[in-house]
Amino acid sequence: MTPIEQAVHAKAIELGKLAIKATTSAGSGHPTTALSLAHLTTVLMYRMMRWDPQHPDARGSDRLVLSEGHAVPIVYAAFADLGVTITPGGEGRSMTMTDLMALRSIDSPIDGHPNPMLGFPFFDAATGSLGQGLSVAAGLAAAAKVAGLDKTIYCIIGDGESREGQIWEAMDFIADHGLTDVVAIFNCNTLGQSDFVADAQHWQELQRKAEAFNWMAIAIDGHNPAEIEDTLRRRVELGRGKPLCVVARTIKGWGVSTLAGMGHHGTPVTQDHLEAALGDLDQEAQELGVQNADPATIDDVLTITPPPAAAAMPGRSEPSGFEAAVAAEPKVASTLADKKMMSPRRAFGLALKALGAADPSVVALDADVKNSTYALDFAEAYPDRYFEARIAEQNMISAAAGMSSGGMLPFASTFGRFLERAFDQIDMAIVGGANLKLVGTHVGVTLASDGPSQMALADVAFMRAFAHSTDHRGNPAITVLTPSDAVSAYAMVLAMAAFPSACYLRAVRADLPLLYEADAEFPFGGHKVLRNASLADRPIVLVSCGYMVHSCLKAAETLAANGIDVTVVDAYAVPMAAAPVLALAGPGGTIIAVEDSYVGGLGSELAEAAASERDTPMVQSLAVHVMPKSGRTPDDVLGYVHLAVGDIVAAVRAAATKS
Amino acid sequence: MTPIEQAVHAKAIELGKLAIKATTSAGSGHPTTALSLAHLTTVLMYRMMRWDPQHPDARGSDRLVLSEGHAVPIVYAAFADLGVTITPGGEGRSMTMTDLMALRSIDSPIDGHPNPMLGFPFFDAATGSLGQGLSVAAGLAAAAKVAGLDKTIYCIIGDGESREGQIWEAMDFIADHGLTDVVAIFNCNTLGQSDFVADAQHWQELQRKAEAFNWMAIAIDGHNPAEIEDTLRRRVELGRGKPLCVVARTIKGWGVSTLAGMGHHGTPVTQDHLEAALGDLDQEAQELGVQNADPATIDDVLTITPPPAAAAMPGRSEPSGFEAAVAAEPKVASTLADKKMMSPRRAFGLALKALGAADPSVVALDADVKNSTYALDFAEAYPDRYFEARIAEQNMISAAAGMSSGGMLPFASTFGRFLERAFDQIDMAIVGGANLKLVGTHVGVTLASDGPSQMALADVAFMRAFAHSTDHRGNPAITVLTPSDAVSAYAMVLAMAAFPSACYLRAVRADLPLLYEADAEFPFGGHKVLRNASLADRPIVLVSCGYMVHSCLKAAETLAANGIDVTVVDAYAVPMAAAPVLALAGPGGTIIAVEDSYVGGLGSELAEAAASERDTPMVQSLAVHVMPKSGRTPDDVLGYVHLAVGDIVAAVRAAATKS
Repeated sequence: MTPIEQAVHAKAIELGKLAIKATTSAGSGHPTTALSLAHLTTVLMYRMMRWDPQHPDARGSDRLVLSEGHAVPIVYAAFADLGVTITPGGEGRSMTMTDLMALRSIDSPIDGHPNPMLGFPFFDAATGSLGQGLSVAAGLAAAAKVAGLDKTIYCIIGDGESREGQIWEAMDFIADHGLTDVVAIFNCNTLGQSDFVADAQHWQELQRKAEAFNWMAIAIDGHNPAEIEDTLRRRVELGRGKPLCVVARTIKGWGVSTLAGMGHHGTPVTQDHLEAALGDLDQEAQELGVQNADPATIDDVLTITPPPAAAAMPGRSEPSGFEAAVAAEPKVASTLADKKMMSPRRAFGLALKALGAADPSVVALDADVKNSTYALDFAEAYPDRYFEARIAEQNMISAAAGMSSGGMLPFASTFGRFLERAFDQIDMAIVGGANLKLVGTHVGVTLASDGPSQMALADVAFMRAFAHSTDHRGNPAITVLTPSDAVSAYAMVLAMAAFPSACYLRAVRADLPLLYEADAEFPFGGHKVLRNASLADRPIVLVSCGYMVHSCLKAAETLAANGIDVTVVDAYAVPMAAAPVLALAGPGGTIIAVEDSYVGGLGSELAEAAASERDTPMVQSLAVHVMPKSGRTPDDVLGYVHLAVGDIVAAVRAAATKS
Repeated sequence: MTPIEQAVHAKAIELGKLAIKATTSAGSGHPTTALSLAHLTTVLMYRMMRWDPQHPDARGSDRLVLSEGHAVPIVYAAFADLGVTITPGGEGRSMTMTDLMALRSIDSPIDGHPNPMLGFPFFDAATGSLGQGLSVAAGLAAAAKVAGLDKTIYCIIGDGESREGQIWEAMDFIADHGLTDVVAIFNCNTLGQSDFVADAQHWQELQRKAEAFNWMAIAIDGHNPAEIEDTLRRRVELGRGKPLCVVARTIKGWGVSTLAGMGHHGTPVTQDHLEAALGDLDQEAQELGVQNADPATIDDVLTITPPPAAAAMPGRSEPSGFEAAVAAEPKVASTLADKKMMSPRRAFGLALKALGAADPSVVALDADVKNSTYALDFAEAYPDRYFEARIAEQNMISAAAGMSSGGMLPFASTFGRFLERAFDQIDMAIVGGANLKLVGTHVGVTLASDGPSQMALADVAFMRAFAHSTDHRGNPAITVLTPSDAVSAYAMVLAMAAFPSACYLRAVRADLPLLYEADAEFPFGGHKVLRNASLADRPIVLVSCGYMVHSCLKAAETLAANGIDVTVVDAYAVPMAAAPVLALAGPGGTIIAVEDSYVGGLGSELAEAAASERDTPMVQSLAVHVMPKSGRTPDDVLGYVHLAVGDIVAAVRAAATKS
């Protein structure tokens, strides 16, 4: 056995013991999966990866995406062993054994699954919801390509996890875009949580599948240091122009008899059995003849190569500088020229292209609807910064998250309805701190003719759950913006770029009349009063967004002609500063929230604010309460779901008589 | 050319013309995709499928799942040609050419994408959000297997659509479970919406991938009647024990020069070009020498084979009879015996097993966490009715929808957090009328140690959007139930089975003390008053569900010891009948909603009800407003997100002084 092999075995066993101790200390976790990665992690972190333990977030360094996040104790063990920098509360310091043993405790950054935002910047994304890591790795590689960085992105994927379709979306995406700096490592330990993995996920099958997806797939013994290192060192040569997929045969619970076989997936070793488990690993060391390996020799051999550009390259930084880009951007008026009507999605395309001109780190992705979302404008102008994601929304979102971690500002667009396909990925991107710019077009029932399978109706309710949670920057975890015309859409896209947290633009399909002057501004949380009713003792205020703002204005005209004067508000943002909107109606008044989606958006925003205080107006809600269907015009469908102008008029009349 | 080939060509051209006319009449739609399927549809519907145009929903008949739903006009054309029964408003009648030309109009069941619930029972599921159809087909085949029905399920998938990972989840699932009655047909017309499909989706690549996924893949000319029919007739022989995948090379816009090539994806022929387009197809007929094909001969050749068991087999029927099963079920008390503590998920396992015993059409699916959700109880007792879906939640949900259409009652379980992976599929299942029983375990922050990647926090907000929409049966599109102990969990699982619309059970991980007597009942929309405060002029009512009910009871005890008496309500259902809950507090009182998830659940339910009327109590909300993290105990994490018992006590004190 070579000194390197001896050193790797000795270190793998040392890290394995630490992973066992940490999970026993935590009383939960997955030591078995960690042990199956002991050798792969050791070779990667102590030999192969070009990185700097002082700056584990250095953007120029090689990256490791641990897609099967539950294996993370083995990485934590290496961190404690190397004293790598962690940044709890923003303060950098070396990770200690005490930190390691605090695994999963409430005041520790050493979380149950990888989470960079808690102070573990070695990771670029939060993982743990399975199947997303390879897409994140793809995004990191794409960002490196745009930035011209030479770095390798390693991604470790579980064999059971590879059942997730998103893994195969990522395999296609990486092959499509020639992102050969990604190395996919399948950890084939044959054991899932509740059963052995299916035949379809056995290592030979994964190798066949990877080859069918146009990767070069090499099978190795995942506990053989020489095989691991030789394969990774020769990746370019072995890949022959294709991305390299390493199918590693491993043993879950490697080296520990009591952890062998089924039934130990998420179960740490109990205190009573701890000594025996550690003893098993000592026994393993003896059998390998590394029980007396000299620490000094080990350290000589396990030398970490610094990143190619560590000094030059800053760590993962909050996006900045876009204010300048935005300021440099000519006002929309000149762009819209003498347009009378324009769709918000059309304005998105123009604004995205303008951002692309203003800042080289703006990148875009779209899921084969770029001609409908108008991401096409950007794709044609900046082909090197446009990544066609095809009809695979999950991969698109996780890849965008990876691009964000890689220092880019990603705009990911498709029909709002199809972003629903990636709600899990959006959730994980938010947890991991991705500065994601989501654009969903064709939202609401006014899409009409295509029918319910294409209408975003539950998107606001889902996003609003995050809008009222604070992310690690202290911002709303997501800000939802629904423009009611092209001017506001254009302005909002620029504002999204300048804001350092996740945003979601909801851009309707229809051409709409312009409502705003070119220099209008749309601060987050704000609203616009489009029609101000003359004072009444019981005012009625129509609050809406997007397409329905226009319906409310029509309703107001009809009502005015019949002697009922109502105020009309464009409440374009969630979260919304509700107090001033409520004040427009006052304690005696009535607010009617009008939205062409299911409940959970504007109506909830206003009702919750009103109900939480006394002496506030009534808040009634007009929303979609039936399953919609196709109609040939927006009016047809709005009538079908009882949101026609006449329905709004009727609701106001009822409120007027009631109050 | 044989008479059959002549007849198929003639009919394909006839249907193609009708599809063009229908989309031109609608002013939207996808004639190009429809034309690429003209021959495949003709061979399937007029020659291969065993079905009954009088009873297109007959469960014993062969089924067609059109995964690329936008191609549906070609199927509508066949329906109008054959006068197949449609059931608008529940009334059965033959579809006419007038119906066809009413495509996509608001009062027509001929919707933009397949939708059985509008009166088109030939389809078993709503499609249109791409990538889901093959999973539905898998579910239909699984249901047929359980029911012992000999039927073939054909599924047509677009080449661009095959980029969706869910397609490959379904390929694995079908191969895994030996569902060889599914025939997957890839429609390879090489054109997506915004671009040519990627190299990775070219027909040769799809064939390689299908083979790597252990299917038998045969490539054919999708416009050659003989090749199509020969391949489908010999499917068992060709499959050699594997499911058959037909890779059909087709032409988008077949036969129409103005529709050839890129740029015509979703664009119907304009009225001006209609004649020319139809003329192109006449020209095609001449070149094929079928322009004068004798209608009588065509009808002789295009004979539809009746289903093997049409008479015996009812059409897709609303699930029923479960009341009996449920009534037959012994009360939970005997099951729980002398248990003091039990987790709601444990009770789910017991109840599911009991249902399995009571009714043979109860089936279950789980995503490799059956030992955590306790679906394992059912899996072990009824292995023939349990379908392990592995770590692929999207396929699990769409397959469950297919099982529902196939006459089974499917329970699909995993961590609530991972159901988020399938929100798009849940949405489509609801649109398609699937009677789905969803079970999400480990919900809320009290999961604690595993951290945010495993905690369901936005699930209630999403589901509530549907809870307030009415499905085609007049029920809430989904009913959300969050049990606070094992007795209520058990009762709710039985109630879910008896209710003929979608339900979602949220079962927390933790063992909880039993709160209810064995014979307690939990009507949908209801609530339970667990602690009734002595009358106060400004009552304070704590309203909660699940784990937090216990925190509220603890808080109430602490407060009582300090002279503040509060009412505690278990509001286990969304949608909730809010009026009686509001009445507990009265106009002068305060309701504090307490939930360990993001906003959008209980708090919204109560606030919206309160705000919509005058003289109602204040509604305040305690929910999760920060990104949670791992903690070693539920209390640790509840403290971190400001939902500890002490926080509830403080909120009540504040309300008491305020009011």
